Amino acid sequence: MTEHRALVHLTRAWYVACTSAELGKRPIARTILGRPLVLFRAGEGVASALLDRCPHRNAPLSEGRVVSGELECPYHGWRFDGAGKCMALPGLAEGPVESPGRCAEAFSVREQDGWVWVWCEPGVAPDVEPMRIPFADDPRYTVFRLEMRLEGSLVMALENMLDVPHTAYLHRGLFRSGEKRHTITARVRRHGAGAECEYVGEPRPTGVVGALLAPGGGVVQHWDRFLMPCLGQVEYKLGEKSHILSTQAMTPESDYVTRTYAIAAFRLPIPGFLLKPLVRPVIRKILKQDAWMLKQISDNVNRFGGERMASSPIDLLGPHIYYLLRRAERGELDGREHLQLEREVLLRV
Amino acid sequence: MTEHRALVHLTRAWYVACTSAELGKRPIARTILGRPLVLFRAGEGVASALLDRCPHRNAPLSEGRVVSGELECPYHGWRFDGAGKCMALPGLAEGPVESPGRCAEAFSVREQDGWVWVWCEPGVAPDVEPMRIPFADDPRYTVFRLEMRLEGSLVMALENMLDVPHTAYLHRGLFRSGEKRHTITARVRRHGAGAECEYVGEPRPTGVVGALLAPGGGVVQHWDRFLMPCLGQVEYKLGEKSHILSTQAMTPESDYVTRTYAIAAFRLPIPGFLLKPLVRPVIRKILKQDAWMLKQISDNVNRFGGERMASSPIDLLGPHIYYLLRRAERGELDGREHLQLEREVLLRV
Amino acid sequence: MTEHRALVHLTRAWYVACTSAELGKRPIARTILGRPLVLFRAGEGVASALLDRCPHRNAPLSEGRVVSGELECPYHGWRFDGAGKCMALPGLAEGPVESPGRCAEAFSVREQDGWVWVWCEPGVAPDVEPMRIPFADDPRYTVFRLEMRLEGSLVMALENMLDVPHTAYLHRGLFRSGEKRHTITARVRRHGAGAECEYVGEPRPTGVVGALLAPGGGVVQHWDRFLMPCLGQVEYKLGEKSHILSTQAMTPESDYVTRTYAIAAFRLPIPGFLLKPLVRPVIRKILKQDAWMLKQISDNVNRFGGERMASSPIDLLGPHIYYLLRRAERGELDGREHLQLEREVLLRV
Repeated sequence: MTEHRALVHLTRAWYVACTSAELGKRPIARTILGRPLVLFRAGEGVASALLDRCPHRNAPLSEGRVVSGELECPYHGWRFDGAGKCMALPGLAEGPVESPGRCAEAFSVREQDGWVWVWCEPGVAPDVEPMRIPFADDPRYTVFRLEMRLEGSLVMALENMLDVPHTAYLHRGLFRSGEKRHTITARVRRHGAGAECEYVGEPRPTGVVGALLAPGGGVVQHWDRFLMPCLGQVEYKLGEKSHILSTQAMTPESDYVTRTYAIAAFRLPIPGFLLKPLVRPVIRKILKQDAWMLKQISDNVNRFGGERMASSPIDLLGPHIYYLLRRAERGELDGREHLQLEREVLLRV
Repeated sequence: MTEHRALVHLTRAWYVACTSAELGKRPIARTILGRPLVLFRAGEGVASALLDRCPHRNAPLSEGRVVSGELECPYHGWRFDGAGKCMALPGLAEGPVESPGRCAEAFSVREQDGWVWVWCEPGVAPDVEPMRIPFADDPRYTVFRLEMRLEGSLVMALENMLDVPHTAYLHRGLFRSGEKRHTITARVRRHGAGAECEYVGEPRPTGVVGALLAPGGGVVQHWDRFLMPCLGQVEYKLGEKSHILSTQAMTPESDYVTRTYAIAAFRLPIPGFLLKPLVRPVIRKILKQDAWMLKQISDNVNRFGGERMASSPIDLLGPHIYYLLRRAERGELDGREHLQLEREVLLRV
Repeated sequence: MTEHRALVHLTRAWYVACTSAELGKRPIARTILGRPLVLFRAGEGVASALLDRCPHRNAPLSEGRVVSGELECPYHGWRFDGAGKCMALPGLAEGPVESPGRCAEAFSVREQDGWVWVWCEPGVAPDVEPMRIPFADDPRYTVFRLEMRLEGSLVMALENMLDVPHTAYLHRGLFRSGEKRHTITARVRRHGAGAECEYVGEPRPTGVVGALLAPGGGVVQHWDRFLMPCLGQVEYKLGEKSHILSTQAMTPESDYVTRTYAIAAFRLPIPGFLLKPLVRPVIRKILKQDAWMLKQISDNVNRFGGERMASSPIDLLGPHIYYLLRRAERGELDGREHLQLEREVLLRV
């Protein structure tokens, strides 16, 4: 059997490396696309990212400490600023401290919406800014933040998040597991910056979240969105009063490990202090079931030495996620491209 | 040092995948020659085997459930019959469910003598049937069944089972570790379907099993047999009254893991209810010592990056086991071939 | 990023395999440069080393036992003398026991100074003898012996042992972490058999060891030495009364595991029974900090897939250690070569 692996390594892109809250006085280690990074707060608390290796003797800088906004190597005490420049070389009596070979490679960093984003290509100026997360700080919304380690590839994790048909099986009892079936229309649009699926005429999903969204039942508006290269978004609306927007930033640590950072914003006709204890454990449980499934799949792909993918017309976003990421990786993504298609889907409610 | 590995991958063959008792209502996962399989009972309880991977998104089907004789994938609920045909694709509103790309690869299965046998080549009709195990259900015999995981290759495990000289060392105190030495004749015959060694004029072995077989001592009849490709058999006879036939089916899980399924049948002049508590712990202990040794050897082969094999004239069956398996793997086994030789062996009793 | 690994595999060399005390009645397993060895005491207790694999069926001889000065394989009881010759093949009724294919490969061994040295190339007569360790048995000296497993390459471990600038950082609080800085001269000499660094005009180091060496402060004599291919030596002198000589024999087990055997000899104006409880825990703690750092670096090198080494003028011995080992490995070491250079170093005291 010849096998294939749907893995994409897009380094010219922003990924969330950690949350603002995680990055305090001590440096922390993170890995993106297999690249070990150290994050720390340089002068005036500016979030900074270097390759996590001292250029001198390969010690991990993340095991060092931050002294006056400089990162100090734990082995010989060499110090680096936020741009990776060597600022101190203890014991050196003659000659300059700074030299090109003594620099640590630095990565562009942005801190916004409570997340620290890293541009995963060193020495290349980013040509875009990381996306702002809607309603992250909007006082009208109740906001949940969650992080989770998923043992699945970026492509698998994004497809899983934006896939509807699995909910009746993997999340049986929590989500869309009722007895009634409705045929509805799914409208898929793909463009250069992402892909979106709109469900037209969808009855309110079963489960706690559906019940809170539309206590009286009825038809909801529902979109699943992929925003290049690492964001997934699920949006539900019922009139003007009820609105749910859940955004996940997916960071590929390695081929089969993806870290997800979620911001779920709820505007519902019940108060936030009641909403949190009802909804948070459900979100956590759903995410844990997805994490379990992704691990099962990754283990299986590694047992078999590769993947096999049979297509079905109701894999609505997965193929487009893979298509867009692969094109971008090859530098062939055309910003003007546009595709639209419609599919009938049998939804269990 | 250039190293070699005596590994054989014969896929056009029957191997025991599990016992009948292990295969109940839930699917189970097994690996044979590195191929992950799922076993389940399809319509009317018929034991069935598929490649353990949903053709859709690579989820392990063994984590799913059996519904009305069909195996349901735990991710999206796709269902497969015992032949691997896709029978349900939940959510699909239009078009046919069945399609060639949606099939799970199926393997031929036979259930007999309390074992579930799998033909390890998918899409190929077996040209033989698995061997029946003598006396497995004979009421005149007391039968022990045992399973054990051995960390050794198929060739190592088969040779170990059918080798006499090691018993005085590895099983010292349990088997053939007395002070007396007898020179006896070993007669080896090899043909297209296996190899056999007959010990002529062998005094009763020491240890519990020998004492039960021939309480008064004396000369026993003794054969060690290899039956292609995965069966080992040890047979002892004393006149018409006492008979022991122990058969082990060896299933290669991976290069250095072999699972053995044993059926040991005893007809002795003591009742079965007395025999079991006397003999069972001895068999288990001997098997555990063999398992320990096989693991030591496998670890060593992997430390060294290969095997080295010095020959000795009293390696009576090992070289023939390897020869026959290798020839069969290459499709060069000649069913008519015949070889016979005799060796003098110094047996410790 | 293309990466490089500073790994040297010099097999025509003596390495310490174990201590004399470790080698008792039972055989023991050791690995040098990836070669699994069994050590045992053959006739008259002579330390002997064979490849740890029975030539018959690959069982590890180190799991066997020593019988009358011969090593017995635990599987079939084959026996080997200290030169690897097969002396017994139980069960063999006809023909000779000894044969070239039944030999276990043997290694030259020397036992001296409490260590068992092995020449790591089988079948090649050593052209030198292992070095004697000064003062190992001198009654005027208090001697500490220590062994430790370091997860670092031989080159990393030797450089770490003989490097001064890291002490103020990795061993902060224990060694050279005071506030005063002195510029002193380091004189480096490299020749065919090693390299040495002499510190001229070095003030007494801080910490317990420095305080014992020179209670009244003052200038000490200090040399760090590398002696091909595996010895590191640190020597301090204050007049005729105070002398410390610490020798470590570094044995490369595998690429990133090195075992160090240390003999530290102290002649100080305080009695040995007072010295031991003061100094031993400090030495142990320093070694553990070095072991931790070496593991950090090795893990990082493996995360990155290789090493990167920026140079600094105060890496006084590291580059010479690597140069000499690499030249020796290639058979290009010139015994007559000589190099001398001086560097100014800023020492924290």
